[in-house]
Amino acid sequence: MKNGTMKDLLIEELRDIYNAEKQLTKALPRLARAASNQKLKQAFEAHKEETEGQIARLEQVFEKLETRARGKLCHAMEGLVEEARDIMEKDFPPELKDAALIAAAQKVEHYEIASYGTVHAYAQAIGERDVANLLEETLKEERATDEKLNRLAIDDVNKKAIKAA
Amino acid sequence: MKNGTMKDLLIEELRDIYNAEKQLTKALPRLARAASNQKLKQAFEAHKEETEGQIARLEQVFEKLETRARGKLCHAMEGLVEEARDIMEKDFPPELKDAALIAAAQKVEHYEIASYGTVHAYAQAIGERDVANLLEETLKEERATDEKLNRLAIDDVNKKAIKAA
Repeated sequence: MKNGTMKDLLIEELRDIYNAEKQLTKALPRLARAASNQKLKQAFEAHKEETEGQIARLEQVFEKLETRARGKLCHAMEGLVEEARDIMEKDFPPELKDAALIAAAQKVEHYEIASYGTVHAYAQAIGERDVANLLEETLKEERATDEKLNRLAIDDVNKKAIKAA
Repeated sequence: MKNGTMKDLLIEELRDIYNAEKQLTKALPRLARAASNQKLKQAFEAHKEETEGQIARLEQVFEKLETRARGKLCHAMEGLVEEARDIMEKDFPPELKDAALIAAAQKVEHYEIASYGTVHAYAQAIGERDVANLLEETLKEERATDEKLNRLAIDDVNKKAIKAA
């Protein structure tokens, strides 16, 4: 990429997040099974559906950029999923495990917020308006999911984790 | 941790972020060397100083919680640093490399925002007010660093990356 352009960089970042989202769709059902709190279980299930929509949206983006939809192994998401796996395997009381699972999921959301923030800025910078709009939709969803998890943690899950101990 | 408490969970999360910050202090000088844009170089250098202050603050937190300051390998930060290393090793034009380095750094900032957000919420939930205040200071710094990088990307680095290609 000695003579790469901003569009090449955009595509490279899109491949990273495309792979990250695919890793996440595999992890979310495991997170839902590991959760005890019903609202948290439902939040993970809902986010699985949403993530599938975001993958489809990325495929639209690749099409608009006239490039093949393919991923590139995202090491950061591997690390994030490994942290979540560590929590799932632990012998925590269920209420405490729920609190730890939310923390892991919020780290994932923040990875995605940073990543979609970047690709959105790149697409805007090179004047790819349709692409920028699609990516902004996902960015808003990721921020809303993070906020939802935040409220669930503070209003419900963390309180139960304290009572349980 | 069958009979773990929220305080145990807080300490576990603090050990993760303590290790993550230590990994980051090693990575930031390399990021600064790899950057061509002077403002970006300075931003990485300034954040190295800030990160050292945040590590000292975490040591204060461990002391207040009457536990030994020690880290636990943070896989997510390993993955994030690996992504940054990939960028540094690439044969990008310098202006494009700067844009990619900012993206990698913002992912790191968002990991930290999520992580400090969690430990701050845990500390508040268990009534550890001094600890919560210390963690909130760092949380604000991380958000400010992310915002600073964001502005630098949009107002300067991304524009130069487009012009250079």
